[in-house]
Amino acid sequence: MRLLVCNANTTVAITKLCADAARAAASPGTEIMEATPRFGPAVIATRAENAIAAHGVLDTLADHAGRVDAVVLAVSYDTALEAARAAMPCPVVGMTEAAAMTACLLGGRFGLVTFSAPALYRELLAAYGLAGRLSGIAMIGATATDALDDPDAVDAKVADAAARLAAEGADAVLLAGAAMAGMDRRITTTVPLICGLAAGTRMAEMLVRAGYRKPQAGSYAAPSGRASTGLSGPLAALLRGKGA
Amino acid sequence: MRLLVCNANTTVAITKLCADAARAAASPGTEIMEATPRFGPAVIATRAENAIAAHGVLDTLADHAGRVDAVVLAVSYDTALEAARAAMPCPVVGMTEAAAMTACLLGGRFGLVTFSAPALYRELLAAYGLAGRLSGIAMIGATATDALDDPDAVDAKVADAAARLAAEGADAVLLAGAAMAGMDRRITTTVPLICGLAAGTRMAEMLVRAGYRKPQAGSYAAPSGRASTGLSGPLAALLRGKGA
Amino acid sequence: MRLLVCNANTTVAITKLCADAARAAASPGTEIMEATPRFGPAVIATRAENAIAAHGVLDTLADHAGRVDAVVLAVSYDTALEAARAAMPCPVVGMTEAAAMTACLLGGRFGLVTFSAPALYRELLAAYGLAGRLSGIAMIGATATDALDDPDAVDAKVADAAARLAAEGADAVLLAGAAMAGMDRRITTTVPLICGLAAGTRMAEMLVRAGYRKPQAGSYAAPSGRASTGLSGPLAALLRGKGA
Amino acid sequence: MRLLVCNANTTVAITKLCADAARAAASPGTEIMEATPRFGPAVIATRAENAIAAHGVLDTLADHAGRVDAVVLAVSYDTALEAARAAMPCPVVGMTEAAAMTACLLGGRFGLVTFSAPALYRELLAAYGLAGRLSGIAMIGATATDALDDPDAVDAKVADAAARLAAEGADAVLLAGAAMAGMDRRITTTVPLICGLAAGTRMAEMLVRAGYRKPQAGSYAAPSGRASTGLSGPLAALLRGKGA
Amino acid sequence: MRLLVCNANTTVAITKLCADAARAAASPGTEIMEATPRFGPAVIATRAENAIAAHGVLDTLADHAGRVDAVVLAVSYDTALEAARAAMPCPVVGMTEAAAMTACLLGGRFGLVTFSAPALYRELLAAYGLAGRLSGIAMIGATATDALDDPDAVDAKVADAAARLAAEGADAVLLAGAAMAGMDRRITTTVPLICGLAAGTRMAEMLVRAGYRKPQAGSYAAPSGRASTGLSGPLAALLRGKGA
Amino acid sequence: MRLLVCNANTTVAITKLCADAARAAASPGTEIMEATPRFGPAVIATRAENAIAAHGVLDTLADHAGRVDAVVLAVSYDTALEAARAAMPCPVVGMTEAAAMTACLLGGRFGLVTFSAPALYRELLAAYGLAGRLSGIAMIGATATDALDDPDAVDAKVADAAARLAAEGADAVLLAGAAMAGMDRRITTTVPLICGLAAGTRMAEMLVRAGYRKPQAGSYAAPSGRASTGLSGPLAALLRGKGA
Repeated sequence: MRLLVCNANTTVAITKLCADAARAAASPGTEIMEATPRFGPAVIATRAENAIAAHGVLDTLADHAGRVDAVVLAVSYDTALEAARAAMPCPVVGMTEAAAMTACLLGGRFGLVTFSAPALYRELLAAYGLAGRLSGIAMIGATATDALDDPDAVDAKVADAAARLAAEGADAVLLAGAAMAGMDRRITTTVPLICGLAAGTRMAEMLVRAGYRKPQAGSYAAPSGRASTGLSGPLAALLRGKGA
Repeated sequence: MRLLVCNANTTVAITKLCADAARAAASPGTEIMEATPRFGPAVIATRAENAIAAHGVLDTLADHAGRVDAVVLAVSYDTALEAARAAMPCPVVGMTEAAAMTACLLGGRFGLVTFSAPALYRELLAAYGLAGRLSGIAMIGATATDALDDPDAVDAKVADAAARLAAEGADAVLLAGAAMAGMDRRITTTVPLICGLAAGTRMAEMLVRAGYRKPQAGSYAAPSGRASTGLSGPLAALLRGKGA
Repeated sequence: MRLLVCNANTTVAITKLCADAARAAASPGTEIMEATPRFGPAVIATRAENAIAAHGVLDTLADHAGRVDAVVLAVSYDTALEAARAAMPCPVVGMTEAAAMTACLLGGRFGLVTFSAPALYRELLAAYGLAGRLSGIAMIGATATDALDDPDAVDAKVADAAARLAAEGADAVLLAGAAMAGMDRRITTTVPLICGLAAGTRMAEMLVRAGYRKPQAGSYAAPSGRASTGLSGPLAALLRGKGA
Repeated sequence: MRLLVCNANTTVAITKLCADAARAAASPGTEIMEATPRFGPAVIATRAENAIAAHGVLDTLADHAGRVDAVVLAVSYDTALEAARAAMPCPVVGMTEAAAMTACLLGGRFGLVTFSAPALYRELLAAYGLAGRLSGIAMIGATATDALDDPDAVDAKVADAAARLAAEGADAVLLAGAAMAGMDRRITTTVPLICGLAAGTRMAEMLVRAGYRKPQAGSYAAPSGRASTGLSGPLAALLRGKGA
Repeated sequence: MRLLVCNANTTVAITKLCADAARAAASPGTEIMEATPRFGPAVIATRAENAIAAHGVLDTLADHAGRVDAVVLAVSYDTALEAARAAMPCPVVGMTEAAAMTACLLGGRFGLVTFSAPALYRELLAAYGLAGRLSGIAMIGATATDALDDPDAVDAKVADAAARLAAEGADAVLLAGAAMAGMDRRITTTVPLICGLAAGTRMAEMLVRAGYRKPQAGSYAAPSGRASTGLSGPLAALLRGKGA
Repeated sequence: MRLLVCNANTTVAITKLCADAARAAASPGTEIMEATPRFGPAVIATRAENAIAAHGVLDTLADHAGRVDAVVLAVSYDTALEAARAAMPCPVVGMTEAAAMTACLLGGRFGLVTFSAPALYRELLAAYGLAGRLSGIAMIGATATDALDDPDAVDAKVADAAARLAAEGADAVLLAGAAMAGMDRRITTTVPLICGLAAGTRMAEMLVRAGYRKPQAGSYAAPSGRASTGLSGPLAALLRGKGA
């Protein structure tokens, strides 16, 4: 099985970190491929960057349509998730969505640790219908870049934030940051700590094995016959119907 | 990996049907065990039967605590799910919960096909926080016993109901009935048809592979030092702390 | 009128405390009977104990079906409430449900004081549709056993917690613990303090006087013709249709 | 015990009908008094009439402050309920609120039969936090005046509407119209039919017997020291603090 | 264009303050008229005063029906808003509703600064369907009268409260008090500060320019043929259909 | 005042239609500019097209940052609205958001007429917190292209759909389609018909006149110092901080 770990920003170091976390979580026989958009924000932390990056994600995925068995989005805002899910011929999983669903399967409510933009996570989880299962969000006072540069210091901050969320009622804690990928293997708390890359990889494998049919109708059916201007060849082809 | 498919009613034919569906979905190397409660309702279709069956499920699971890697509840009401999840030392997955989470990962809203008791499913999904993702519930005008006795006729009714739900906006359809186990392999619709046994088996495998830590605090921590009267030895032991 | 105060755990001292609180609240002419399950947890504080106790409640109630005019559940988790309500031929009232409805009739939002398991109360009130009327939950740092052993000390803790909830916006405070029965007669706060046993007794009397018809359809109609294995004779009979 | 049945419109025939329904539901020893506002709409069917009638209700209640043990509002929009509850020194119950709370205690979801203005009932129940327990609203195609003039014809329409709501999933049906008072004693359906006057009378009796303390703080505390212009003497006095 | 700024209480100084704020916000060519009820509370701070004032508002508006192009309610509880909107032949805007809608158009969630009665604002915004966009409510520890007597001191308190709300996640802050009218021109915060009078004036102008048709059906259609007793001539006429 | 009407797809005829509708609604002295993205879908009808178009919108707006007083998005999915609002130094209004807010100010609930993708509108309005005010969505069985080619036929379909929504309880109806711009001037229903371009133009004028401060903190503050790759010069500059 081939899974594509697709970053939404252009920082290759984050792509590699995420792909490594995916490899550590994958079953034997799963090949993890990685991709980074050709254009877009270096790191996503604002609403505008997230919106722009959605195009970057779809542009990148179009290159792989039909050549991978599933996609895991390596971006904690689950950028372009629904669009990619509808357009691609294979399952697409978001790292925060997968982590949230995993937390639900473990029971109760979950907290979320993040570098920035708590409002965007609150909105994202509400859009998934999971607002009632979110116990709280903790900012850690560090950036994605800090996590790459000084992982030990950021690990300590994440551990503190996770412990605080657990004390306040979280039954599990989500690591909501692509640059936090793999921290679940280094940090221990009183409740499960869920890395979205690991969760997303396992959920993607699960969907590939299940082999569900692509919807033939509704807003998740593949686009067909849609015209466009100025997009990459593969992306324009995906809209015309290659993904069906 | 050993997964226990645990029925909540005392009809062994349903246990076998569900275990077969689990085996068809399981990965190579996963052993599917099966268990049926010693006491309780023959088939669950009412609130009282569901409440009584919760004890039967826990009584049955206590016999297997420490001897299986995960549990899949083979009952579409997810009877005793949260209690079993908290008490058992391993992951426990409900078939309808797993199907619903799988549907979410495929995108959009899901419909639900059932033999009876639509109110209980509406309440169940609301308790999971997923009321907003439920597009509708369709009763099929047949019983669980009918499904065992005349599967072709019931298949046709389920296919009709699923098609109707899809036409009304469902992006996926859940088979909410233990006696519907395996129907997803015989029926085709315009949207994915999700068997809870298959979904639950895959979600259970996923959680076992992930190896999340059991919560040490909160309402999903294992019971410890709890006294009881008149329960089976293993269940009393589970409350005293065997599951920790 | 005969009201049955039915405990859900096996601690007779709690049954007696609750029956006394019911007697203090009952109208002249109401006879308060009391019952304690033959099996189950000594005190309910975990999800598993609550699920097991549901069977104990129904088993106990089945002995009284047709011989009492209404039931008040003497357990603050309202264990097996909906199941008992559907199965029994008479009204069944939960102490926390009754207290919450009473608080609503007094106006505004209510707080809740509890020994343990705040998550279960939050979920319970959400299932009643009353999440928006809950202003907060306060744990008192004592157990049900403490309340039996040293009532003065626990009274003081409850008074503090209730005052704190009132200061934070509660227009009334619920005593969510069977072992808190009667505390409303000893503690004064700036807002009404509502004992579930007293509230439940009055609500049960109200329903008996009203004489509403038992639903003949839907999920609250009495079970009929349901087969079972290994249950007590009266409970099996109730499922077969004695309650109709 | 003295209960005041207070109409919100100026049609004395409706006041009498409601007072009779209250008397039929009241316990022995409960005296039912009746009051009709001096000014306001003849029958309430629009938003403006309902807003004006709130003043009429409070003006009327002020005359009785300190002289009755509780109030039942004989208007299905529960006009001025929260205001009256806060201002009066005794319990105040709304007929639709009481009917809805009673339906909740019977279990499941309720439907609502009305003459007009379904939007106002939907908003009212949402304000009570009970939107999730409302299964549907049925208009009967008749007016309050019709019910006074030709009760048999309107009874038949209400019976039809209630049956329809029950068939669509209501576990109980509320009679949302003061001019429907007493119909519950003439009509039979498969589910309980709840008259708000009867329910309100019983709930008011229950609150009087309970003797809850008036809140000393928050938005339900009695007004004190509030200045006004051009109001009736008793109403101005109530705002100045007579109700404390 | 003629806009009527209509106070809901009888304090003329507040009417003047609000009319001045409206004039400062109005476009050239907009004439701001002002009106104060003939009867009712001096200042609204309780549920009873708010209910009584609804009649005062409608009584006052009826005098102006057909003679103004739109109405702005100069009361932060938006007293009688829906009733006035339905009854009047022109647009009617509430100051808090307008401020909340404006905040939504600026993005994200808003906080609210108030003199008193936070419960009423929470309920008001929930009734508008905007509960999810309210980030918090801050009481300032001063009264409407204080704001008239010592504006500098109250300005400082409002500035502090607004800053606190912004720090806690508000993307905008509403001034919820008629006596806070105009403070937005004197106070600066890190997020937009929205005066309901200014917002309401602009929204009213917008609706007048748009010229939307009055609904001919539903609960916002004008009343017609409604009988009443003891109301002012213009108000009785409005209910009879003058507003159509 | 200069308002930019910015299309999200590349069909210039739709841009022109929308700009004309904006001009018809604008106040004297408002100059309507128009812009069409350089790349992206011809018409947006799917999730993928909408996600890609967000980049197109931001790319186009960046060219105008600092040179217009406000932006109206001429796309009924309000594509990139929150991102544009945060990134641009001026107010940005979405046509469907503006129409929905306008409908709220007229009172009650609104229906929505659309060419396609009802799921996306349901999700959009839920994200605005307005799910409870949406009475229903009607598909008209025609495309945006049909509206350009045969406006009379599509007008008739829209009129039918609007009438149906009004009959089912809508107090206003939104025209959710850029290609429906201006239909409100040709179609009459029993309730207000709201064109998003007209509503958006007026709301944008209102915000410009109000002159609210740009948030200095939170997720709607302008981006600053954000690095990117492969974006247009103006868009990269906007992320670096030109919009502050």
